[in-house]
Parts: sequence; structure tokens; C-alpha cells
Amino acid sequence: MALAYDGAIQQLIDSFARLPGIGPKGAQRIAFYLLGADAQEVQDLADAITTAKAKVRFCEICGNVCETSPCPICEDPRRDRAVICVVEEPKDVMSIERTREYRGLYHVLGGAINPMANIGPSDLRIPNLLKRLKSGEVTEVIMALDPNIEGEATTTYLSRLLGPLEIKLTRLASGLPVGSDLEYADEITLGRALTGRSEV
Amino acid sequence: MALAYDGAIQQLIDSFARLPGIGPKGAQRIAFYLLGADAQEVQDLADAITTAKAKVRFCEICGNVCETSPCPICEDPRRDRAVICVVEEPKDVMSIERTREYRGLYHVLGGAINPMANIGPSDLRIPNLLKRLKSGEVTEVIMALDPNIEGEATTTYLSRLLGPLEIKLTRLASGLPVGSDLEYADEITLGRALTGRSEV
Ligand SMILES: [Zn+2]
Ligand SMILES: [Zn+2]
Repeated sequence: MALAYDGAIQQLIDSFARLPGIGPKGAQRIAFYLLGADAQEVQDLADAITTAKAKVRFCEICGNVCETSPCPICEDPRRDRAVICVVEEPKDVMSIERTREYRGLYHVLGGAINPMANIGPSDLRIPNLLKRLKSGEVTEVIMALDPNIEGEATTTYLSRLLGPLEIKLTRLASGLPVGSDLEYADEITLGRALTGRSEV
Repeated sequence: MALAYDGAIQQLIDSFARLPGIGPKGAQRIAFYLLGADAQEVQDLADAITTAKAKVRFCEICGNVCETSPCPICEDPRRDRAVICVVEEPKDVMSIERTREYRGLYHVLGGAINPMANIGPSDLRIPNLLKRLKSGEVTEVIMALDPNIEGEATTTYLSRLLGPLEIKLTRLASGLPVGSDLEYADEITLGRALTGRSEV
């Protein structure tokens, strides 16, 4: 009795089941969808994966994902170089860009402090942030971390660390539902939180 | 202001967003997961996709997915060749195999009759089923379609079509929650439904 699929099918299912947010049933559905899909569509997916992995890097300045380092935002002469918005992940940069309320630069930490997951300050791009602030060009740092326990811990850590510097520290206005992920905030809510940001 | 990601990243997100069960947010999460993942893991996923698509075909007899046609089930001399279990999709074969209650063969229709989606009897592997039944070897056909409107319509259509033949027609016992997909039934429920199958 065959209790697993033939090798290549099972391997395809297993590969998708390892991705975040996809359970075993979802992986099976995707696998069968691909097996029945147009060959070109399937090849396009495989190519998109390898191409992105080959082309995409992290910006040496801000840590955002990009195809060229420094990234287009860091290189853009129209952006306000006196303000840096600190976020956890590259996707948060995109969320804030969508509000069209922000003209400064970014700094992507690559996560948040999370003792449960063994992520401490030294695992985040904090030294790079300090180095950027030492240039003296920056007058404000906006902390735009996720409004959850880890984000709050990171905001607290950063405000203590950056407090001695002569830089205005602000954070996104409350208004974001607590316990949620920044990426799920709609553009209007996030835009208002940005406009009404308060000093720490 | 960058309102879309750099080309390769956006293309990766879009490719995943096209897959069933993955929304735009889920696609973004997967894309960033892959961009941060080990290069080998990412290559393995791309390879699993292309390998499966290249290797996997549909069994010329039963329509199940397999790497060799006829498939291992159709070729297995220990299976009872007098019974054919008709299912909608290859994943349903796996669901029934997992019950360990069934020793016969399968016939995968490739879907169910669904006028709303423009899927009629001619879009399903029904002629191939009739051809298999004409050999005279088969004494029972078990209809194991999804217990929803489309599955019921297909069961009704098949019972009328196969009625004139000298073959016992059965269907899975009720007990499966109506309106659900067969693939979500747990193994015990599905096993009991199979054991207690009734004549149509
Ligand atoms: Zn940058
Ligand atoms: Zn077969």
C-alpha cells in the first residue's frame, strides 16, 4: 500500500510545507496545482525563486533588501537625510512607503529583541545604526517597531542606548492595535500613526 | 518614493501570490523568508518544483499522479482488480490509502461536474472509466466523491450512466460532514465511511 506519494511529488509537498504559513494540506494543494499547471507557469515560479535569491542582497547602509547596494532609497537625493526610521523587517519599509507620509531614510534591524527566541541586541543591525548616527547628519530617529512585546522591548532598549546622543527620538503614535504586526495595519492607520508620532 | 519592491523581489512575491491558498501578505512573508534563508534550501525548493514537473505524469489507466505510467497501484499484483474506487483528485487516492481499509484499484476523474465552473462530464476521465469497466473484470465501483454539491451531482450522473452495466455501484457511507472536502476528513472517519459503504 502506497502511504507516501512517489518521490518527486512528496519532495515537492515537503518543500512547500517548510515555508512559513503553509501547512501540510496547503502544501499538498499547491503541489497538485503545480503538477496540473501550465509548464511555463511552473518554470516561471522556479525561475523567480532562483533569480531573486541570486540578485537580491541587503543594502550595506540601511539593511533593506535591494538589487543594488546602496539601495535606491539610500541613494535618492530627494530623501531627507536628517531623519531615520528604524523598522524590524524590509516589509515594514514597504508598509511605510505606501503611506506616502515619509520622506526620510530607513534602518532595518532585521528583527526585534526576543529572549524566548534567543534574539538579543547583538543579533540586530544596531552597531550599523550607531555608526550612521555618528556622522552628525541625523537629527531625528523614528522608532517604528511592531506594537507587540518584542517591538516594545526593542524600542525601550534603543531609547536607552540612543538617549545620550543629541538626537530627537520619536515613536509611532499609538493607534495601532496592540499585539498586532505592523505589516497588517492599513495605510490610513499607519499614516496617521506616523504623522502623530510622539517624542520618547 | 518606491511603492513596489525591486523587480526580482516583486516578481517572487507575485509568483507566490498566484498559488492557491496564498494571499498577497502570505506571498510577501514567504518571499522574505526565502531571501533570508540558506541558499541551499532555496535551491532545493526551486529544484523540487522543476524536478516534480519534469518527472510526474498521470497514470494512463487510473489517472493518478505518478513517476511511472501505469502507476505502482495499477501495477501492484496484490491489489483487488475487481473493485474500482472513483475519486475526484489524486490527493483523494492518498486520503483513502491512509485509511488502510482499501485493497482495490482507483479511478481519478480529475474533478467533479460543476456547471458554475463550466465543468461537464466530457471534461472528466469518464470515457476511460467506461473502457476499464468493459473488460468485465470489475464487479464493484465505489463512488468516493467529495460530499458536496458537485460531488453529489457527479455521483448521480455516474450512477445513471453505469446503472445499465452488471456492476455493483456503491458510495461512501454518510458520516462525512456534508459540504466539506474529502481531503479534510480524518483517517478514522474516512475509514468507517469506506467500511460502511452502501449500494446506490
Ligand atoms: Zn539602503
Ligand atoms: Zn494507475
